Amino acid sequence: MSEIITPSILSGFMELLPDEQVLFDEIKAKIEAGFRRYGFWPIDTPAIEKCEILFAKGGGETSKQIYRIDKGESSQEQALRFDLTVPLARYVAQHASELSFPFRRYHIAKVYRGERSQKGRYREFYQCDIDIIGRESLALSNDAEIPAVIYSIFRDIGVGSIVFHINNRRLMNGFFRAVGITQSDAAFRAVDKLAKIGEDSVRRLLVEEGLDDAQIDALFEFIAPNGDNDAILSRLEGFAQAHAEADIALFNEGLDELTRVYALMQRFGIPQAAIAIDLSITRGLDYYTGSVFETFLTGFEGIGSICSGGRYDDLATNFSKTGFPGIGLSIGLTRLFYQLSAAKVISPKKGDYVKACVLPMSDEDMDYAIDAVSALRDAGVISVIYMEPGKVKKKFAYADSIGAHFALIIGERERMAGMVSFKDLATGEQENLSLEDAIARLNA
Amino acid sequence: MSEIITPSILSGFMELLPDEQVLFDEIKAKIEAGFRRYGFWPIDTPAIEKCEILFAKGGGETSKQIYRIDKGESSQEQALRFDLTVPLARYVAQHASELSFPFRRYHIAKVYRGERSQKGRYREFYQCDIDIIGRESLALSNDAEIPAVIYSIFRDIGVGSIVFHINNRRLMNGFFRAVGITQSDAAFRAVDKLAKIGEDSVRRLLVEEGLDDAQIDALFEFIAPNGDNDAILSRLEGFAQAHAEADIALFNEGLDELTRVYALMQRFGIPQAAIAIDLSITRGLDYYTGSVFETFLTGFEGIGSICSGGRYDDLATNFSKTGFPGIGLSIGLTRLFYQLSAAKVISPKKGDYVKACVLPMSDEDMDYAIDAVSALRDAGVISVIYMEPGKVKKKFAYADSIGAHFALIIGERERMAGMVSFKDLATGEQENLSLEDAIARLNA
Repeated sequence: MSEIITPSILSGFMELLPDEQVLFDEIKAKIEAGFRRYGFWPIDTPAIEKCEILFAKGGGETSKQIYRIDKGESSQEQALRFDLTVPLARYVAQHASELSFPFRRYHIAKVYRGERSQKGRYREFYQCDIDIIGRESLALSNDAEIPAVIYSIFRDIGVGSIVFHINNRRLMNGFFRAVGITQSDAAFRAVDKLAKIGEDSVRRLLVEEGLDDAQIDALFEFIAPNGDNDAILSRLEGFAQAHAEADIALFNEGLDELTRVYALMQRFGIPQAAIAIDLSITRGLDYYTGSVFETFLTGFEGIGSICSGGRYDDLATNFSKTGFPGIGLSIGLTRLFYQLSAAKVISPKKGDYVKACVLPMSDEDMDYAIDAVSALRDAGVISVIYMEPGKVKKKFAYADSIGAHFALIIGERERMAGMVSFKDLATGEQENLSLEDAIARLNA
Repeated sequence: MSEIITPSILSGFMELLPDEQVLFDEIKAKIEAGFRRYGFWPIDTPAIEKCEILFAKGGGETSKQIYRIDKGESSQEQALRFDLTVPLARYVAQHASELSFPFRRYHIAKVYRGERSQKGRYREFYQCDIDIIGRESLALSNDAEIPAVIYSIFRDIGVGSIVFHINNRRLMNGFFRAVGITQSDAAFRAVDKLAKIGEDSVRRLLVEEGLDDAQIDALFEFIAPNGDNDAILSRLEGFAQAHAEADIALFNEGLDELTRVYALMQRFGIPQAAIAIDLSITRGLDYYTGSVFETFLTGFEGIGSICSGGRYDDLATNFSKTGFPGIGLSIGLTRLFYQLSAAKVISPKKGDYVKACVLPMSDEDMDYAIDAVSALRDAGVISVIYMEPGKVKKKFAYADSIGAHFALIIGERERMAGMVSFKDLATGEQENLSLEDAIARLNA
């Protein structure tokens, strides 16, 4: 007898029970169906990439969290991908001559980050990304279509209403220029932490970066939530007029983009109430250059943005001399699923999956029962047959345990009559039906 | 300007272009739909497992091929899974108290083996596994249901007819016992190589294992293809009678199992012509104990078995004292896709994906065009809008390049008339339609 090893997984990894998995997969399938309906193409890249690709931009924060592969005999440094954006950049640059541009791709796959283990943070998690990549140029209207896809998906998932918080990096850079702030990347990163660490801490960060009090006050005044979208847009126009003497061209470009994206998002079917112009949204990552988005679930803003992204001027700087501007959004599905479950917005229900369980009462009924379950499956009814020997009670217990809606009981009487006993396992009601009638009932 | 790194992936990994990916995903979706129709539950386990789990059975061949994770600060030895069976064993043992038995699960996911690079062999590949796991016992009829799922799936995929080659390890062990062969595992492994290395080489292996010439001759006579299923079953009954003096009980058990599984497979809807009793099928792996299966695509037998598996007495010996007998089959999808593509059984077709491409002729037409594409998507038509500026020719070239069936052209004339120009991109035919009529045409 071999030694028993306690079965367990590594900490920081999500593993679901079957009923939970059904629910997870249902949400994932709705995300994918939305991506497809909007004409995005699937891609699937290796989970292992060369380190020279993954770290083409330099190490940075993520390099500490990387899952490196023990090389063994290979001469190549290898690691698991930490996001789907670097693989997309590599893919687009590598296959550019065989792609149509704008290239619309979706990618739903696991990524790996060896983060410090904490609740709701996973080391392996699904990202669901859509991006539209242009070759050398990409029309601004794409910035409005991308959130429309996400809006349509969350409507399908049915977990309540979402609000896109939108801003524009060009506008923000224009503001920095107008008020003489030169440390724009640092300012973006500091403001990005506002919701997490609060105004005082952000102020301290900005002081450390060398901003003076007047600049910091101007910044906080600028990004403060203040009125509805129209009021904010008016205020921004007012700012442009008030600073007409300063270098305000970039600001005006950004304002024009923000105004147009806001209007086009509505054209793409997103209700005005689901869009909040929010100048405190900056996104932490350096590569965003225009529109930036975060998305919040109404009533559950505390769980943070459930879908984020934006416009970047050049996706594949490190892999190609061709410019590939793009716009993308990403849903962190594993974390979202954890949070929606923890907040009880979603919960797995037994019986949402298998509809019918066929129960032959004895071995003599087996052939007839197999014919019955085959007919159900041919009619598209998700169904199971329980073929183990044992008492009737055990058979019903199985049908109950898998959450089947209905049991089709097949004993000598049913077999002789060419019928089935059709039992609603929720109500306990039972009647004799022909197989055809049972199928009609199941497909009703 | 940063240095350009040539974008590439590691050798031995499959990466597809979008049209190929659409085809791959279509096959994968059909496999999944079949698994679900038959009432198998999805599971999704971490790609990284503890080495103590992966190597619970001891190292063996696979341990040389393992992708180990550089531990970094972790105290746990970690590696990428090399199959989906060990994770299933761990999952079942770990969560047994929360599962219903027989536990029917499917798992479609990537596994990793650092095999020597060669054509059609991949280091990262999809396995599509179904298994039914009992607790302490599992009825034989499950052995017949599992191939029925696979049969139904290949019918849906539509790549031609398949034939299950079936055998039974108990029968083979009974034969070994009857003729005095004691090296059964070695004999299984040797015979498993027959198609690959030929009879002479297998004979040499068997001699090395200590079988004598009479035993080897008896073995080759026994496993030789010889008549149809009924003829083989008669021959097996004849063998039992001829060896009635020997210890033939195990042989008879195996023969009874094989006979019943053969009959039940037909009951589950597999035509007789799609089942070949084939005593040369043994499967190389030690853990099979009863039914074993390989599956061949008619006319393309040379590509090898496209779906293999069998019955095992105890899935989780190393993780639990409870016995978990099971039956499972596995499709190696990545290799299958490669082989079907190479044999030109399948090929990606442009235009099997996006159905309609909306082409606004100018910025003035954008709003109307966005309304049109939104209506198409709401009606479930996979569609794209091309919003880039440029000449008409460039716009049509895009619609062509993505393989759209139809272009919906929207210029000033169409917009004013509240119509669209509906162009069949294959035939070149073009007509004016209302949007409703265009949708009806697209959904026809």
